[in-house]
Amino acid sequence: MSLPAPLTGVVPPLCTPLTPAGEVDRVSLAALAERLIDAGVSGLFALGSSGETAYLGDGRRRTVLETVVEAAAGRVPVLAGAIDMATERVVDHARTAAALGADAIVATAPFYTRTHSVEIADHFRRVREGAGLPLFAYDIPASVHSKLTPRIVLPLAADGTLAGLKDSSGDDGALRRLLVEARRRGLTDSFSVLTGSELAVDGALLAGAHGVVPGLGNVDPAGYVRLYAHARAGRWDRARAEQDRLAALFALTDAGDPAAMGGSSSALGAFKAALHLLGVIACPATAAPQVPLGDDAVKTVRQLLEEGGLLP
Amino acid sequence: MSLPAPLTGVVPPLCTPLTPAGEVDRVSLAALAERLIDAGVSGLFALGSSGETAYLGDGRRRTVLETVVEAAAGRVPVLAGAIDMATERVVDHARTAAALGADAIVATAPFYTRTHSVEIADHFRRVREGAGLPLFAYDIPASVHSKLTPRIVLPLAADGTLAGLKDSSGDDGALRRLLVEARRRGLTDSFSVLTGSELAVDGALLAGAHGVVPGLGNVDPAGYVRLYAHARAGRWDRARAEQDRLAALFALTDAGDPAAMGGSSSALGAFKAALHLLGVIACPATAAPQVPLGDDAVKTVRQLLEEGGLLP
Amino acid sequence: MSLPAPLTGVVPPLCTPLTPAGEVDRVSLAALAERLIDAGVSGLFALGSSGETAYLGDGRRRTVLETVVEAAAGRVPVLAGAIDMATERVVDHARTAAALGADAIVATAPFYTRTHSVEIADHFRRVREGAGLPLFAYDIPASVHSKLTPRIVLPLAADGTLAGLKDSSGDDGALRRLLVEARRRGLTDSFSVLTGSELAVDGALLAGAHGVVPGLGNVDPAGYVRLYAHARAGRWDRARAEQDRLAALFALTDAGDPAAMGGSSSALGAFKAALHLLGVIACPATAAPQVPLGDDAVKTVRQLLEEGGLLP
Amino acid sequence: MSLPAPLTGVVPPLCTPLTPAGEVDRVSLAALAERLIDAGVSGLFALGSSGETAYLGDGRRRTVLETVVEAAAGRVPVLAGAIDMATERVVDHARTAAALGADAIVATAPFYTRTHSVEIADHFRRVREGAGLPLFAYDIPASVHSKLTPRIVLPLAADGTLAGLKDSSGDDGALRRLLVEARRRGLTDSFSVLTGSELAVDGALLAGAHGVVPGLGNVDPAGYVRLYAHARAGRWDRARAEQDRLAALFALTDAGDPAAMGGSSSALGAFKAALHLLGVIACPATAAPQVPLGDDAVKTVRQLLEEGGLLP
Repeated sequence: MSLPAPLTGVVPPLCTPLTPAGEVDRVSLAALAERLIDAGVSGLFALGSSGETAYLGDGRRRTVLETVVEAAAGRVPVLAGAIDMATERVVDHARTAAALGADAIVATAPFYTRTHSVEIADHFRRVREGAGLPLFAYDIPASVHSKLTPRIVLPLAADGTLAGLKDSSGDDGALRRLLVEARRRGLTDSFSVLTGSELAVDGALLAGAHGVVPGLGNVDPAGYVRLYAHARAGRWDRARAEQDRLAALFALTDAGDPAAMGGSSSALGAFKAALHLLGVIACPATAAPQVPLGDDAVKTVRQLLEEGGLLP
Repeated sequence: MSLPAPLTGVVPPLCTPLTPAGEVDRVSLAALAERLIDAGVSGLFALGSSGETAYLGDGRRRTVLETVVEAAAGRVPVLAGAIDMATERVVDHARTAAALGADAIVATAPFYTRTHSVEIADHFRRVREGAGLPLFAYDIPASVHSKLTPRIVLPLAADGTLAGLKDSSGDDGALRRLLVEARRRGLTDSFSVLTGSELAVDGALLAGAHGVVPGLGNVDPAGYVRLYAHARAGRWDRARAEQDRLAALFALTDAGDPAAMGGSSSALGAFKAALHLLGVIACPATAAPQVPLGDDAVKTVRQLLEEGGLLP
Repeated sequence: MSLPAPLTGVVPPLCTPLTPAGEVDRVSLAALAERLIDAGVSGLFALGSSGETAYLGDGRRRTVLETVVEAAAGRVPVLAGAIDMATERVVDHARTAAALGADAIVATAPFYTRTHSVEIADHFRRVREGAGLPLFAYDIPASVHSKLTPRIVLPLAADGTLAGLKDSSGDDGALRRLLVEARRRGLTDSFSVLTGSELAVDGALLAGAHGVVPGLGNVDPAGYVRLYAHARAGRWDRARAEQDRLAALFALTDAGDPAAMGGSSSALGAFKAALHLLGVIACPATAAPQVPLGDDAVKTVRQLLEEGGLLP
Repeated sequence: MSLPAPLTGVVPPLCTPLTPAGEVDRVSLAALAERLIDAGVSGLFALGSSGETAYLGDGRRRTVLETVVEAAAGRVPVLAGAIDMATERVVDHARTAAALGADAIVATAPFYTRTHSVEIADHFRRVREGAGLPLFAYDIPASVHSKLTPRIVLPLAADGTLAGLKDSSGDDGALRRLLVEARRRGLTDSFSVLTGSELAVDGALLAGAHGVVPGLGNVDPAGYVRLYAHARAGRWDRARAEQDRLAALFALTDAGDPAAMGGSSSALGAFKAALHLLGVIACPATAAPQVPLGDDAVKTVRQLLEEGGLLP
């Protein structure tokens, strides 16, 4: 399907269900995609950070994307992460994604290497040209260790290199300045700004963001769809209440023991534990060498699902 | 006057006007305070980061606070920054502020030294006890290089150590989780959460923040007062439009040549250049050894004031 | 050939010469390897950071390694970088390297994802087992954004997971504590500690490091070989003088215009410009999208080569 | 006394002994100074980071300096830290120090505020002029969050603003480049470069540093004096052995429970615990709100003193 311009709404970054042996669990992944579509999301983002993409080799990445494209069956667009260190590999991923039927590519600035704004702009131009698909820039300084400033992004939006931005920087001041300036330049009708900061979505939508890419949307897609609908209809108090409920639910990402694992293992493990408890996926395992959640953490996740109204 | 609990509304962090010789310009400072009160602010925050406090010795700090307390004349509460490296000095500043008539103290975690959450909590308890005034914690990781997490702040809110938080961390996800949890614990009727992220104030107020401490509020206090009023009345579209206008105006902080000066010199210099162009203060000089704005930068500031409707 | 245990001496991280079209220039790469072996290095490290590995896809990486293994022809061991985001891909690279005849693998902790010491240790164990070759841990926080502390490294050295460490952290205090503790545990006869901090090699060798992996060794391998020989013979004053000369030469990494490119483009571009001026490689191009050096920068490189006695 | 130019040798940053009530323990501080002078140090640095200066108000700072100047009694020069956020306060401290008889001032770049190289240079010029005493720049990015690059330092060394540099950056590559360039410019006969990286002193002296400012020198001044003497005499193997012993002893800084306190509380607490166990100071307390060491940590300190040959 062709990608709406601008893309709007809720576009969850799908978790990647694995078997106990570490293979991609295609049945569970398809079930997850189905659940998200049923809930009313407007796109599926496969192979993002929530999808544990850093941990997946090319074979598993391919399986993930095949599965999601097949499950989507043209009902919603599929965005494919092409997450890798620098341009050549990103283009390789993007071409594979295009061949597998993805509708758009999501890529970061180069990382591992120290980079520069001129280099980043050239990178995105090469990826756009190499991929032959609409391209979203993915701003995630916590992983990439550089920031996609408005000064980098706006010219790339203006010249058609970028179809959109997924902003996971958490820098809502920079986001606001980007949105204001994009509107001033007449870009917001085609260039889609999606926030990845899943805890202040009401504010981001009020500020003019086109949508949201919430990791927690794997667990409660209907909540984010309601939040989006309230915001679009100007029901800001109800949007706020929904966001508050989701912010409380987000505490599940802290379930893991901080002395025993990192924040990423805790958050991704908790999303999967929740999906397992909800009966969506068959196995909560995360990709090696991430540290699995302990029993206490799973209890915490269950309790938060109950408090959030997702489990009886 | 006694401090409202919780403190709400617009509480600008006052710039510190200086004479060409570097003395505190009491007349200009009183004029600035008067202008802010006229615009409808609900408090004045003297000796914050926007006040160049890092650059001011004890004598100039004292003069600033005397001037602001006298200018406020009990019409709005005066919050006094007690910004220093660690507990003893912070308590010294706080006691001086109490003696000079301040209504509340604003203090950060210890800095320069590497610190720890246990140490930070003890620090705030000692400052509260030493000051004998309501205490606001000031979360500004860009200066202090540690973050006041909800885990640190909430117990101090619950036990009465803190009357509020000024959140200049820019971490709106953490802010939301703090607000949700504070509400759950019944703290939001007394504990005031003020955002220092002046570009997403509509979103922060929607999320439940009690008010805002905007550096740009020196330049356009009436704008922030309108934004606050719209938000409180549920006129979110108008709040958003006001914030958008202010976000465009905020570009003045980038006026300085980045090859010649740091971001702080540029921003503080631009606020003062604007106040000078608006006729509020007599001299735009910043404290040594900050780098002054060049003529081109001042032209940019003037143009942005015109575009923002503040100059004809 | 089998890898000496511990590996000692000078092990340069080879630059990757490219054609103007961006293909690996096998002839130039073989010439570079030959020059290094002639100079007396004790190993060749292909596909490290100086080799622009982040920018190279699997095909170019394979060509590099084939070329270097063939050029080495068993005269010195070849260490192959298996630089990628996390375990599965690192193991893939390591297996390819083993199949192509590499003698050892060099791998970092997982990056892009936020990680944890338990996860890092498990990662190295899986890479060691998957590769079937001796494994060097590569500590480069500037790229990976986590530090391989002695607490992580020492148990992996003791249980045979790691054959060595390439320490590019620049943290010579931590390096000293590692060396002292490794000696106390009787590990230094088998576990090789190589410094990647090419400007303080005399001090690192004095402290007990086994060798050095100098990017600048592409340009002046004989200098580092002399430095190493002086140190091993206890001629510390001559070692120091050699290091001083090399430190002055290192200024070529700053040749690029800092307003136009990043530090990495400048340094890697300068190494290649120097190799081109020295007649070792046919073309100084770096991999896209790095920014090429301008003419002034090349002049600076030439001048420094002259001052360093490498060009007449 | 007048300061030697360049200052060389071992210049320990004195701990600040406190009474249980938190007052400066003048008797213990004088005893500490005496012990250091007896051991052969070439200067005393009062009010540095190891002296917990961040935690001390003006009164306690004054007492410290009076005590150290009196104890030194002209036998060795006294360097006084003028550690504060920005220029005005730093000048205030420096003038007080001059009045109290200090022989030189040690100051950092401005902190808390974001700064810039132009501003930093102007800062040091103003401090030098205001103080009327020789000035050492203190490079400690872990506290100040900016780095004093050779590009900032060398012109200030050349024009006489700076009498020296205390380099606690841990960046031994930058240190080497500074030393090489300073020598090239003929500055090393007057400009003193002291390393604060107490674990690689042999390497720093080999590289041309003039001396060392070791926190651990409070605990084992004789060890550092021997290390320095070996290095100056070219006995590098013995210098290395001494440094190795001191590096093993340095493990006491990790004695504190990392879950209960920060690294600074642990390190400063351990220095004081060691001095208390050695009978030099009367009470091991650190300044509030630092977290005190637990009993297990003190046992660890004792054991390391025994292993290091400082306790029987």
